[in-house]
Amino acid sequence: MTLPEPPYYAVIFSSRRASGDDDGYAEMSEKMAALAASMPGYLGVDSARGSDGFGITVSYWDSEEAIANWKRNADHLAAQRLGREKWYEDYETRVARVERAYRMNRGA
Amino acid sequence: MTLPEPPYYAVIFSSRRASGDDDGYAEMSEKMAALAASMPGYLGVDSARGSDGFGITVSYWDSEEAIANWKRNADHLAAQRLGREKWYEDYETRVARVERAYRMNRGA
Repeated sequence: MTLPEPPYYAVIFSSRRASGDDDGYAEMSEKMAALAASMPGYLGVDSARGSDGFGITVSYWDSEEAIANWKRNADHLAAQRLGREKWYEDYETRVARVERAYRMNRGA
Repeated sequence: MTLPEPPYYAVIFSSRRASGDDDGYAEMSEKMAALAASMPGYLGVDSARGSDGFGITVSYWDSEEAIANWKRNADHLAAQRLGREKWYEDYETRVARVERAYRMNRGA
């Protein structure tokens, strides 16, 4: 993923899915990814979830203001509430300032 | 995962596995996780990899010095070289300073 040179900001979201039905999760997940990408200051996102239900999503932003603005978006707030109520067993969110970045690409 | 209050440091490692055999990857991955956990300043690690081969590992450290020390560990350097040569199609490493952390735990 091509991002500008650091510094920029990362939101590290580590979560464990609650067991049971999808219950709208996949649809909401796609909707939130598209909404985040439309927000000012959004730089990109990486996401991985294993078969054990544990996943990490890291979104990148150009400023702390951009993160604060995304956090309080009304549709995102509604999704956060549903996440707490039914989709996640537990989660942790960490806001970090990226200082350095390195890359290896076999094809490049 | 219980970590101390911020600030502390995160190494965000996003990677895509090369296709083909495991070729010692799983064994080395476990060995490096144990070695990292034995290093001074290590706080913890989270890791997830999806069925598409894309994964994110975030390790947490109490200082930039601890990260530099881990980066140049001889056994780790050998593993990094094998990663570049055969295990990963591409990867990105980002070093970040965690400023804030939040948590939700349904069972707590």
